[in-house]
Amino acid sequence: MKYFEDIKVGDVFAVGRHTFAADEIKAFARRFDPQHFHVDEAAAARSHFGGLIASGWHTASVWMRLMVEYRRRMAEAMRARGEPVAGIGPALGFRELKWLKPVYVGDTVDYRTEVIETRPSQSRPRCGLLTYRSSGVNQNGEPVLSFESTTFVERRGEQP
Amino acid sequence: MKYFEDIKVGDVFAVGRHTFAADEIKAFARRFDPQHFHVDEAAAARSHFGGLIASGWHTASVWMRLMVEYRRRMAEAMRARGEPVAGIGPALGFRELKWLKPVYVGDTVDYRTEVIETRPSQSRPRCGLLTYRSSGVNQNGEPVLSFESTTFVERRGEQP
Repeated sequence: MKYFEDIKVGDVFAVGRHTFAADEIKAFARRFDPQHFHVDEAAAARSHFGGLIASGWHTASVWMRLMVEYRRRMAEAMRARGEPVAGIGPALGFRELKWLKPVYVGDTVDYRTEVIETRPSQSRPRCGLLTYRSSGVNQNGEPVLSFESTTFVERRGEQP
Repeated sequence: MKYFEDIKVGDVFAVGRHTFAADEIKAFARRFDPQHFHVDEAAAARSHFGGLIASGWHTASVWMRLMVEYRRRMAEAMRARGEPVAGIGPALGFRELKWLKPVYVGDTVDYRTEVIETRPSQSRPRCGLLTYRSSGVNQNGEPVLSFESTTFVERRGEQP
């Protein structure tokens, strides 16, 4: 990732997109969220959702994978250009995780993460704190997921 | 589940416990969170965690499965006693999801959910709103995970 000093409020990361297939929706839900509208097409069709939908934890977990892959691509591109890559800490949690609309079979969710606050860290002088809002929007432009998080990002440090 | 009127602030649900094995930690992480400290024992041992740890999304997803199974057990027991079972809505999101300590291979997490607020719903007069705080505590008594959520629960309705 970029260093703390190079990241600004309003910066947007196009994290990636994912199309949810019936098989993966059911595989995740059988393991972690075996409610009828996540695991059984016929029962889901009779539910108030009217069709099979992905578990909210599944849609959030897909964001995580896309974010890990995005960071990896960014780091590789920066190294290829000979730029130093800043360390980034693991997120310590999430706030206001909202599932706004169901994600149905075949829906494509476009995940974006926007920087909403940057501030120096009191506890770790070599780091800054980056707060961002992540969201997922389906192919109809409807937000399906949003959450906020804060993470440590390395500062550029003293240049010699 | 019980009806809204039968649920009180301070009620605790012992949702269940789960021991995290290396294989499942790596299987989840390869799919959703392929960071080195979640997928590779040797690399994890060299990381600042000092060993393989579960993805935070994995520890949250396990809560979801245990909660679904818990509700099912409760509903079956109530039906067996001839008691009516109240409907409960899907959670619309979570607040203040915090991963407080790493979950290492072999750790057993005990998940509990405590009711922290109950109030009538303005938008759905036949329902009440239940706010609860869920937490996971490891075998050493250390909290590893916590979050809050609000969900609709059916009211008992007018008795004839």
